[in-house]
Amino acid sequence: MPLSHPIHDPAVIDPFAAEVEELVRTGADFHRRGWSLGTSSNYSVVVSREPLMLLMTGSGFDKGRLQPGQFLLVDENAAAVGETKLKPSAEALLHTALAKHGAGAVLHTHSVSATVLSEHFLKEGALRISGYEMLKGLSGSTTHESEAVIEIYPNTQDIASLAAVIESRLADATNPLCHGFLMAGHGLYTWGESLAAARRQIEVLEFLFEVMLQRRLLAGA
Amino acid sequence: MPLSHPIHDPAVIDPFAAEVEELVRTGADFHRRGWSLGTSSNYSVVVSREPLMLLMTGSGFDKGRLQPGQFLLVDENAAAVGETKLKPSAEALLHTALAKHGAGAVLHTHSVSATVLSEHFLKEGALRISGYEMLKGLSGSTTHESEAVIEIYPNTQDIASLAAVIESRLADATNPLCHGFLMAGHGLYTWGESLAAARRQIEVLEFLFEVMLQRRLLAGA
Amino acid sequence: MPLSHPIHDPAVIDPFAAEVEELVRTGADFHRRGWSLGTSSNYSVVVSREPLMLLMTGSGFDKGRLQPGQFLLVDENAAAVGETKLKPSAEALLHTALAKHGAGAVLHTHSVSATVLSEHFLKEGALRISGYEMLKGLSGSTTHESEAVIEIYPNTQDIASLAAVIESRLADATNPLCHGFLMAGHGLYTWGESLAAARRQIEVLEFLFEVMLQRRLLAGA
Amino acid sequence: MPLSHPIHDPAVIDPFAAEVEELVRTGADFHRRGWSLGTSSNYSVVVSREPLMLLMTGSGFDKGRLQPGQFLLVDENAAAVGETKLKPSAEALLHTALAKHGAGAVLHTHSVSATVLSEHFLKEGALRISGYEMLKGLSGSTTHESEAVIEIYPNTQDIASLAAVIESRLADATNPLCHGFLMAGHGLYTWGESLAAARRQIEVLEFLFEVMLQRRLLAGA
Repeated sequence: MPLSHPIHDPAVIDPFAAEVEELVRTGADFHRRGWSLGTSSNYSVVVSREPLMLLMTGSGFDKGRLQPGQFLLVDENAAAVGETKLKPSAEALLHTALAKHGAGAVLHTHSVSATVLSEHFLKEGALRISGYEMLKGLSGSTTHESEAVIEIYPNTQDIASLAAVIESRLADATNPLCHGFLMAGHGLYTWGESLAAARRQIEVLEFLFEVMLQRRLLAGA
Repeated sequence: MPLSHPIHDPAVIDPFAAEVEELVRTGADFHRRGWSLGTSSNYSVVVSREPLMLLMTGSGFDKGRLQPGQFLLVDENAAAVGETKLKPSAEALLHTALAKHGAGAVLHTHSVSATVLSEHFLKEGALRISGYEMLKGLSGSTTHESEAVIEIYPNTQDIASLAAVIESRLADATNPLCHGFLMAGHGLYTWGESLAAARRQIEVLEFLFEVMLQRRLLAGA
Repeated sequence: MPLSHPIHDPAVIDPFAAEVEELVRTGADFHRRGWSLGTSSNYSVVVSREPLMLLMTGSGFDKGRLQPGQFLLVDENAAAVGETKLKPSAEALLHTALAKHGAGAVLHTHSVSATVLSEHFLKEGALRISGYEMLKGLSGSTTHESEAVIEIYPNTQDIASLAAVIESRLADATNPLCHGFLMAGHGLYTWGESLAAARRQIEVLEFLFEVMLQRRLLAGA
Repeated sequence: MPLSHPIHDPAVIDPFAAEVEELVRTGADFHRRGWSLGTSSNYSVVVSREPLMLLMTGSGFDKGRLQPGQFLLVDENAAAVGETKLKPSAEALLHTALAKHGAGAVLHTHSVSATVLSEHFLKEGALRISGYEMLKGLSGSTTHESEAVIEIYPNTQDIASLAAVIESRLADATNPLCHGFLMAGHGLYTWGESLAAARRQIEVLEFLFEVMLQRRLLAGA
């Protein structure tokens, strides 16, 4: 009686062994840090632009010990490509929405600080973070004076509707959504042009969330 | 002079090498996270239903470096099966009570947040947790609107009596105990249909405990 | 230009390779947990009773990467045994005091919570900890009702005087010092009949310190 | 399509393989601890005094997985030495300033507690830390009575001006800058005669920062 049930689709996934390896390593690190506990989170990397195809974690696996058989390919509609017994995550539509607007990799995580801050600041609609050098690590930032606005959306099970909102916010000509967004009581979505860039982005954001929490605790002491 | 004293019962334990390996790995992870310090905690996996038999950690071993000789088999009465010099934990009766009601694996841990919250909320009799996406990771949960009620029992050394209470709560037709329970100032019991499922359950619960703690600190700041 | 300077005394240390290996592993774990940062801490194991001899970490080494050449033997007066270029720690006298009263291993560490609590509760003279199941993990404890009294001493550079106080407290016929003691703003001393027992002791105490801290923060929120 | 892009300059960097290996290991440890997330931080080691040359991390790399091709040599003016496609960090001038005044290694990190404390205490101009045994781990300290004064500078993008200020503070005959300094909302600079000494220094300072934070939270509870 095996304790885990890897399902292999060699013909479909094999060309992307390097990306799989990086995602496995990313999952192990995020699980260790407590950002992807309890089979939560999903990660994806764009492996083709025309047609759009994402290599993505299947739903419900332990992120601390991902196996090659736990990844699948999805198309621009978040439907599985090729033969697979895996189910794409319900949130795959958010990954494809972000990929259509240029993301090369999307990381969705559930950290304690993202959960707590997203609930606490939901009524303000965003976390506004300014004055930290670490902000320079966010893609598109150039000086430490900039303010990052991390929008917070109410949590929902209607992912299709949320994906439409996100797409329209990404396409906003004057003030597009950038860096990432929070779902209240749920977690963080962030992205980058590559998996390495998305990982840098999430590390910067989680650092800043922790700073916001600790700073408030210190100020209140 | 060896610094540790492994006791091997190859004939009894050898058929369950895969389960032992997973439990060793689970212990190393939980010890690292601080959920199983100081030889606290005990873990079990059901290896036979008829007759009921659980593979279980012996009492008093360092969970960060479990060895095959530190596991034993217990029957439905929590008595050791086969030749062994190991003593079942006093709490083995809670493991068998849960196994009789369907659990395939039981994890008992001592984390800081479970200890602090179980003491703080004992007078309310339960932790009530709602509004978090992570709740979907609990077995039996289907939407993020659900509330998890994690009952808290006063700590006791009379495990037989507590096990009887737990069995009757599990058998409750209208509102059965589910997900896990806390013993005040002591720790968490949780379970799942498999070890992987129980591990997912504990990761979800520990995450939610941490969220409850941080949320209160932030609100009070 | 080597970045570290191991000094080997094979003839003196070689018989204790197993103990050295366990101490190296202990140091790596404690350094990772933040209990032994910045070359702080010292650890010892009794390797002979008649005459009394302790294998001990030399002064000033990185506990995260101890090397065999960084250990020395000390006698009952805390003087180095055999040829060595290493200096015993100034606090070796505390190790020998504890060893004379039965300790088989002594662990001295500097954690954040031990430092903060020892400063905060110095005027009370002790941390009084009761009501936690984890207390059963302390050597000599039998039920979860017991109270552990962890005495706190003002920090001092006069280790010989403190060692004399500790010896007299250990010899106290009615209420001997047990489990461990804190030096205010400095850290924890604890011990056990073996290194494994001392490690269990420190894990239990550090867990309880963390519980005390978090419990007060939660109560004040 | 490789996910990372190592650039090798064997002729320039190869003689310093041992130093590179230690810096790689240092980066992995600091990244794990959360002191160097999001490609933040930079580290250097002096590899020649006449002329002054520092082996230094290039700008923008993941510190958790540094590769030999991500290091470069800089001269006393913080300009790259030899053929390299790497850009020295904008802050290389701070490293060379410190190296000119005797540092053998410089570590710049971004931890949560350094960020929060540097912001909170900026108006006082320094963190004043006294009464902790751990202070003895700072280079130049001799007793636990001493006070460490960690100066805090407003954050700036004008590194050349800050470097001039730092050089003048290091050269101060009566009260020279020592141990390290903070940039508000940014992070810590510290140094030592060797990489091991600088690592000890940062571990001691980060420990003390954490103590300062927790102590205030406990006092306010």
